[in-house]
Amino acid sequence: MAGIHRHKFKTIDNTGFGPNSSVEGGRLMNKDGSVNLKKRGLPFWTRTSIFHTLLRMKRSHFLMMILLFYTCVNVFFAVIYFTIGVTHLMGVDGNVSLGYQFMEAFFFSSQTLTTVGYGHVAPSGMMANAVASVESLIGILVFALVTGLMYGRFSRPKAYLLFSNNVLIAPYKEGKGLMYRIASYKNNHLTDVEANLTMALHTKENGKTVTRFYPLPLEMSKINSLALSWTIVHHINEESPLYNLSKEDLDDAKMELITSIKAFDDHFSNIVQQRTSYTNEQLIFGARFLPMFERSQTGTSTILELNKINAHEPVTLTEKIHSNNVRNIEVKP
Amino acid sequence: MAGIHRHKFKTIDNTGFGPNSSVEGGRLMNKDGSVNLKKRGLPFWTRTSIFHTLLRMKRSHFLMMILLFYTCVNVFFAVIYFTIGVTHLMGVDGNVSLGYQFMEAFFFSSQTLTTVGYGHVAPSGMMANAVASVESLIGILVFALVTGLMYGRFSRPKAYLLFSNNVLIAPYKEGKGLMYRIASYKNNHLTDVEANLTMALHTKENGKTVTRFYPLPLEMSKINSLALSWTIVHHINEESPLYNLSKEDLDDAKMELITSIKAFDDHFSNIVQQRTSYTNEQLIFGARFLPMFERSQTGTSTILELNKINAHEPVTLTEKIHSNNVRNIEVKP
Amino acid sequence: MAGIHRHKFKTIDNTGFGPNSSVEGGRLMNKDGSVNLKKRGLPFWTRTSIFHTLLRMKRSHFLMMILLFYTCVNVFFAVIYFTIGVTHLMGVDGNVSLGYQFMEAFFFSSQTLTTVGYGHVAPSGMMANAVASVESLIGILVFALVTGLMYGRFSRPKAYLLFSNNVLIAPYKEGKGLMYRIASYKNNHLTDVEANLTMALHTKENGKTVTRFYPLPLEMSKINSLALSWTIVHHINEESPLYNLSKEDLDDAKMELITSIKAFDDHFSNIVQQRTSYTNEQLIFGARFLPMFERSQTGTSTILELNKINAHEPVTLTEKIHSNNVRNIEVKP
Amino acid sequence: MAGIHRHKFKTIDNTGFGPNSSVEGGRLMNKDGSVNLKKRGLPFWTRTSIFHTLLRMKRSHFLMMILLFYTCVNVFFAVIYFTIGVTHLMGVDGNVSLGYQFMEAFFFSSQTLTTVGYGHVAPSGMMANAVASVESLIGILVFALVTGLMYGRFSRPKAYLLFSNNVLIAPYKEGKGLMYRIASYKNNHLTDVEANLTMALHTKENGKTVTRFYPLPLEMSKINSLALSWTIVHHINEESPLYNLSKEDLDDAKMELITSIKAFDDHFSNIVQQRTSYTNEQLIFGARFLPMFERSQTGTSTILELNKINAHEPVTLTEKIHSNNVRNIEVKP
Repeated sequence: MAGIHRHKFKTIDNTGFGPNSSVEGGRLMNKDGSVNLKKRGLPFWTRTSIFHTLLRMKRSHFLMMILLFYTCVNVFFAVIYFTIGVTHLMGVDGNVSLGYQFMEAFFFSSQTLTTVGYGHVAPSGMMANAVASVESLIGILVFALVTGLMYGRFSRPKAYLLFSNNVLIAPYKEGKGLMYRIASYKNNHLTDVEANLTMALHTKENGKTVTRFYPLPLEMSKINSLALSWTIVHHINEESPLYNLSKEDLDDAKMELITSIKAFDDHFSNIVQQRTSYTNEQLIFGARFLPMFERSQTGTSTILELNKINAHEPVTLTEKIHSNNVRNIEVKP
Repeated sequence: MAGIHRHKFKTIDNTGFGPNSSVEGGRLMNKDGSVNLKKRGLPFWTRTSIFHTLLRMKRSHFLMMILLFYTCVNVFFAVIYFTIGVTHLMGVDGNVSLGYQFMEAFFFSSQTLTTVGYGHVAPSGMMANAVASVESLIGILVFALVTGLMYGRFSRPKAYLLFSNNVLIAPYKEGKGLMYRIASYKNNHLTDVEANLTMALHTKENGKTVTRFYPLPLEMSKINSLALSWTIVHHINEESPLYNLSKEDLDDAKMELITSIKAFDDHFSNIVQQRTSYTNEQLIFGARFLPMFERSQTGTSTILELNKINAHEPVTLTEKIHSNNVRNIEVKP
Repeated sequence: MAGIHRHKFKTIDNTGFGPNSSVEGGRLMNKDGSVNLKKRGLPFWTRTSIFHTLLRMKRSHFLMMILLFYTCVNVFFAVIYFTIGVTHLMGVDGNVSLGYQFMEAFFFSSQTLTTVGYGHVAPSGMMANAVASVESLIGILVFALVTGLMYGRFSRPKAYLLFSNNVLIAPYKEGKGLMYRIASYKNNHLTDVEANLTMALHTKENGKTVTRFYPLPLEMSKINSLALSWTIVHHINEESPLYNLSKEDLDDAKMELITSIKAFDDHFSNIVQQRTSYTNEQLIFGARFLPMFERSQTGTSTILELNKINAHEPVTLTEKIHSNNVRNIEVKP
Repeated sequence: MAGIHRHKFKTIDNTGFGPNSSVEGGRLMNKDGSVNLKKRGLPFWTRTSIFHTLLRMKRSHFLMMILLFYTCVNVFFAVIYFTIGVTHLMGVDGNVSLGYQFMEAFFFSSQTLTTVGYGHVAPSGMMANAVASVESLIGILVFALVTGLMYGRFSRPKAYLLFSNNVLIAPYKEGKGLMYRIASYKNNHLTDVEANLTMALHTKENGKTVTRFYPLPLEMSKINSLALSWTIVHHINEESPLYNLSKEDLDDAKMELITSIKAFDDHFSNIVQQRTSYTNEQLIFGARFLPMFERSQTGTSTILELNKINAHEPVTLTEKIHSNNVRNIEVKP
């Protein structure tokens, strides 16, 4: 397995991942671009940004949380009003069952919290009035918060990029290239799009597993505008750390490709960023991407077929670099 | 048509448009700067950003949508209250006609949704109270959303640039220049304004229509501040991909000029961007822009006349580059 | 006045101001950094950003506008309710005077618009209910807008820089320097602060008044952090367009100094920018700035005295550059 | 103490701190990154940004302020209603004690301010109605403001960086290095992280205390991503201003290390910045950091132990640079 030591190739140690952070069976970066890392040693609330958690939560969960919160707060205040006594809620008949009284207290609470305040039930006396006064303040503060969260959720700059599921080793120029493909899938428009690709190899050095990071230079690392899809290409030539590495080599080294895309989104007028990583299992030797756009039937515009982002076909790789030792790699996709 | 193959000129392939995306009769970029492209292959809701659609919608449409939504939600809840029975809405006379009862339910719903809650009609009983409680929550959430959208609509950084309708080929230095003009038309102020110009030519190569992109270098590509108008100039000299091309050549090649302006807006304290494209039909050979500003009557300030952004007059182009073969191009604007 | 033609000095034409924009008696940039320019030729509403006008309006004016708007809307709806008839407003006594009836309609309107909805007056019948329903929707939308405007006003990134009132020609190194001073006057913190200085001279060339722009290089054009005040210095040496120009020369040429400061504000986490211009009348020959900070009495921190931003004292300028022709300029401040 | 004059080393004067700002016993920058500086000479409200003060206030203080404000406004309006007379508040019994009447006015005010408006108490007559109308407007404006503040507080881009408490002089390469450590402690993700380190020494020059600033170059000043912790290292070699300085030298010169970290936060999609400073008392000669991450028990991810950010152990420093005079520094941590 000596071949995997890529001594002559430049490594970088400014990836933010340490050389010793590698773990058996784990990846460095998850598919969604988050780091495969847990934090510990500080209280949960200190090491968690509530705002961001609520911002990044799935929409359905977010709505559930609001509903749950609404119910809990109302129950909480209903208990207080109930304890004070429903006789201090004008309009509630004191002769009904306790359950019914609690229900009235609950709905009075909800009318206060949302500031609807119909008034058919209204607080009377110092205590009930004071509690209602505080509850309506809380209502306004909470919904101020919710307004901010709603806006934050919607306006959070996101790249909305679709990555191909696989990285292909395809014929490129006289030799081979490593290729993956991106497209923006929403009605936003990205300009000044930059791509960056780093390969992590977990190698044994002096009996210790060490993670080495190799930058993989791209044939084109910046485009002016991401109108169509963009196939990002690293040329596997003699300068490439991937040169002469076989699928087995890469599997052994648990190769991981870490890529980040940075762009200017002109809807948000903001810089957006999206990251992902590919493991060795997502690498296909000998395949090339199929086109993912076509002319519209009227012929006046182009159609980008987003479902074809990963469409590829097998292809035979023939290496002929400089030399006389042409080798064929049989590929069974 | 061999002349249109501009072999000696540099082409770029980082425009984000592919070489094969050209279509008969279609342009690459629309006048409003959006890409002439449709996306397909993902569900509508996945490939659409609702927030941005609502943000970019015309103001009248946006208000119509809100009114429609308001009506629908009220009808929806009115149906529920009506189904529960208006006897559970205190204050509604049970003896009136069904239509009138429904109307009362409808208006009760609107009073709940907006949290006005007059209270002359008020829910009674578990069901009606629960529905009203949920509706007032929905009301608050929806209007939280609307608040965010309103703010988003107003605060969205925009360049507010006016482009001239035409691109002129005008006398410039010893030869000719391609010129268009921009001005900011609102009371915002742009600084560090950068312009970028690319020409697309659709040429036949080996029987296949191919789109080639040529960067057109600008005499000045960045200005400190866009106080007045800015005439952006590409000098058509021997280095220019436009050198020696006639109007017919450009018409044949369905020339398209793609330009983007990037600036720092100091009202938003944000980077703003605006794009547009010019087709061959918007190109005028032999014309020059007329001034669009004048002194104020009091003489203490300058007046920028925005309606003159496209004002130009015909002019005879005389080329005399280096050489002895001076040629005149007769222009009938 | 030939001396003012500074032929050997570099001029720039990327300032965004044209060479012909100069006007008798007017300045290019106002003291507040806005351009001395009027726009015309498009409808008022098209060339005005309402949002930014409301954002930049003085606080008192903004509050007056809201109060005015609130009153007008209430009058408008009061007229409608009054026209429908106060008999459709339950709780209003139909036997009172018309003026009193209108007043009741007015206050009912305000209770609807703000969604207070006490309910002692409540709409009855189709018409009154429909109008109230629309009014409460309008109320919510308008106050959504106001929420956005309030937030926009507060959160608008601003540099909060104080400029000295005068530009001084002070002794500097072996010769003279042109100096002005800035300080941030709020509890914000600016980092990566960049300054830029351009001089405009209005000169007669071939009988026509032409404006020429000269960049004035700064001894230090960027500082890491604007903790204390910053005295920005242009060294008037042989390379300087100001070299050998007298006060009279600059007065004749209606010299204007245009400066812009760009910085990163770490409270807003945003880039902020502030501009100003100095006319020849603000230029003082032979003066130097006095310190504007001192130790605190406890000796543990520094005190920045913002009221001393312009504090300066007269000083005799003695030029001795290279040479034997030392000249003294008598200065009477 | 001559040795502390580091004549041969480059100093910088673009730190924003002046050479004379040094004070006995005070530091230049506080631990939280704010400048140890007071501003004076302008009215308090002019030199204070209310918005930012409210934004940066501790959460508990912020809530206290809101509660206080709410109470004060209600007392204020209660006094007005009380002065007008509770007979103009329908629903309040005029025969109760004055204290009870005031209480009713107070709670009516709170119901108006929050727009709950139950209506069991409602204004009657011109005066009471007008005041209530204004109060509900004020309520809406104030809570619009609070909404903005809430959003501003949550969405303010912050770096959430943890700095080690100490700066260590540790063995590094053939010699020594100055090291400190950072980690992000929330669930945000920083990319393009840049560090900057400056040393301030207060030295006596010609009998005057002068502050000199020395840039300390870092072995790596930028990393792509701050996934784990980052130990920032300045190599103390012959090029370093720290070369050959002992702990006593640095104590005498009241050494202060000023560092700032700038990064792109991809949750906020914004640049964030955090600063801190270390005094000579936080400097430990002869210690090295202990690892602060480990494998998870399942072995599939890495665990970052935030409480170990400052974990270090003593170590003997052996200098052997070039030469034969190896010296040992005994360290008693």
